[in-house]
Amino acid sequence: MSREDALARDAADPLAGFRDRYVVEDGDRIYVDGNSLGRLPTAGRAAIEATTEEWGRDLVGGWSRWIDAPLRAGDEIARLIGARPGEVIVCDSVTVNLYKLAWAALDVRQGAIVVHPDDFPTDRYVLAGLAAARDRSVTEPGTVGTAALVCRSLVDFRSGELLDGPRVTAEAHQAGALMLWDLCHAAGAVPVELEAWGADLAVGCTYKYLNAGPGAPAFLYVRQELQELLRSPIQGWFSHADQFAMGPDYEPAPGIVRFLAGTPGIIGVDAVQAGAAEVAAAGIQPLRAKSIALTELAIALHDERLAPLGFQLGTPRDPARRGSHVSFRHPDAWRICQALIEQAHVIPDFRPADVIRFGLPAVYTRFVDVYDAIDRLAVLVEREAHHAYDLRRARVT
Amino acid sequence: MSREDALARDAADPLAGFRDRYVVEDGDRIYVDGNSLGRLPTAGRAAIEATTEEWGRDLVGGWSRWIDAPLRAGDEIARLIGARPGEVIVCDSVTVNLYKLAWAALDVRQGAIVVHPDDFPTDRYVLAGLAAARDRSVTEPGTVGTAALVCRSLVDFRSGELLDGPRVTAEAHQAGALMLWDLCHAAGAVPVELEAWGADLAVGCTYKYLNAGPGAPAFLYVRQELQELLRSPIQGWFSHADQFAMGPDYEPAPGIVRFLAGTPGIIGVDAVQAGAAEVAAAGIQPLRAKSIALTELAIALHDERLAPLGFQLGTPRDPARRGSHVSFRHPDAWRICQALIEQAHVIPDFRPADVIRFGLPAVYTRFVDVYDAIDRLAVLVEREAHHAYDLRRARVT
Repeated sequence: MSREDALARDAADPLAGFRDRYVVEDGDRIYVDGNSLGRLPTAGRAAIEATTEEWGRDLVGGWSRWIDAPLRAGDEIARLIGARPGEVIVCDSVTVNLYKLAWAALDVRQGAIVVHPDDFPTDRYVLAGLAAARDRSVTEPGTVGTAALVCRSLVDFRSGELLDGPRVTAEAHQAGALMLWDLCHAAGAVPVELEAWGADLAVGCTYKYLNAGPGAPAFLYVRQELQELLRSPIQGWFSHADQFAMGPDYEPAPGIVRFLAGTPGIIGVDAVQAGAAEVAAAGIQPLRAKSIALTELAIALHDERLAPLGFQLGTPRDPARRGSHVSFRHPDAWRICQALIEQAHVIPDFRPADVIRFGLPAVYTRFVDVYDAIDRLAVLVEREAHHAYDLRRARVT
Repeated sequence: MSREDALARDAADPLAGFRDRYVVEDGDRIYVDGNSLGRLPTAGRAAIEATTEEWGRDLVGGWSRWIDAPLRAGDEIARLIGARPGEVIVCDSVTVNLYKLAWAALDVRQGAIVVHPDDFPTDRYVLAGLAAARDRSVTEPGTVGTAALVCRSLVDFRSGELLDGPRVTAEAHQAGALMLWDLCHAAGAVPVELEAWGADLAVGCTYKYLNAGPGAPAFLYVRQELQELLRSPIQGWFSHADQFAMGPDYEPAPGIVRFLAGTPGIIGVDAVQAGAAEVAAAGIQPLRAKSIALTELAIALHDERLAPLGFQLGTPRDPARRGSHVSFRHPDAWRICQALIEQAHVIPDFRPADVIRFGLPAVYTRFVDVYDAIDRLAVLVEREAHHAYDLRRARVT
């Protein structure tokens, strides 16, 4: 596996042109952290500018278009996750959306909340808080017979493991639970078929593989058949059946709109729509094919260059069980990560305790990026450049 | 009171130059709805552009600056509402922030939730939902001896009435309650002294008098002495004491950060900081003086031109009891409002059942705008132009 091989694969890549639709001001930098924060699409920048200008020009009149923006952006995402129109809406953060949907699920199901101890922190923290407030227990997968809610990440944020969507959903239903998928590392990265799987609920973020910007509004999904049965605990005016009547009593809107809360951030919502549309334009199946090829390359280079240096692969070798990032485990991962960023200008991220993640969004990542990043990583560790770094903890990675 | 008088007052206005710091593409339009959606500041547009460019250029490295953006924007707002540094943070929506703070208050206080039936819908709806979830009652001001929480709008969204901050706060405390101020129509519009009043909690929006854009992130305030005693019900990772340790258990951060939830929308947060800084640059006392003069002019013109046409003033005549908008009540308010927008290009808003609101943010509203808007309104009603409009309900106003 040579650098020329990688360049040849880029030359033959049918998606290669999509990279030009993103702002790339890298110089010597190699960015492999798009699974933490995706790149700025030129269409996203244009959407942000256009909505800002619209605000300045149309003022409050802009709301005649903006009022439906969360639904429009939701429908754009729906196409990427196998949902029907009107099942997805863009608003709030993953954290707040998870709180709303999990609370609603506990209204209609008795029993425990099932979440994996390796799942993403905000999911575990939110669910632990809800469990305390609602007098439920939190248990690990496989430990209870009946449950109210199963919450799992389709793609694990550390290992990149891709769960079996239909199987996990069916198991949740067998336990009597609603199935809530966290799609943060999955939406725009791997094929998702919520309707076909029979999934009940989902949340996901838009600033990773959907490239909507730092802290852009998240999305939530509620299966059509469940929408009228569930209620948000946060009874905000944007979720009201007749918002501008401003009447005395709360009545939830029909459909997915009832899961809004307060006024959605329109500039962010429009950036979500633009970011998701770019991913849809590339097509989730071509992206998946390239993503598998990129991660296969990363694993082959790991075996050749990194394994002899004490690295272990943290990601499943079966591509069917893998998302779009690869994790390399090393006892010195934190120091190596710091050295890699500062000395080799390769930007991955570190996740405790010993993981370096290489996120490889197929829409703008080149094969030569994978080659060069791992080459620089290997050279750096061979030279023991990371020994100059201390073990202080990262503030933000 | 002639148009020339109004022009003369604009010529003598020490704040007149601030209008040039906002995008004004009005042509024949007169905008008196800044209390619904404020204008785009050129500094806000620059902040949105700069943060967008920063995202494209710095990618995940931008978080070294962004992580403190909610605190920086909060400190900018703190100066406008009489709060200390570290008491205000920018995140989520008013609705979600109210939910978090009211829930937290109910953890530490027994008794009812006090809210006025005329208060803003989202406040009433959120508190009604919380009351049901926490087995509390909701009562009107003055009806109970002891209470857990008093929630009031400092400036009423319909009438523009400005409450007596110190007195209402003291009465809440006498009832054993925490005092939560809704500052949506107050922040940036009237002097607010949360610390001096002894207020406990506050929420407010940033897209009205702080000019941060449609659905921009809101703010919340928690009195320093209370911060360690209260916990958010939404245990998100951005509120964790050691966010990137990603450990098994949730531990709230010290200080105001514990009231964050998920990842804040950074482009919006930076727009909030820019918008608030512009208001601070004008100065809340000069703005208040001009606001009183603008609303006095509106009331004088109402008495001269509108009262003979069947209008009633919906706003207190005492400037000490008035915010920065004026309400005109008329049985035909809805039809008049539609005709006014479409035929006279004056943009106020309608609030049920019979209110036309003229919002007059002092930072960019001219005396001649007030004169012309009311002149056009009077001429329109004299001509009965609104009789051509039906009584269909507004979707968005």
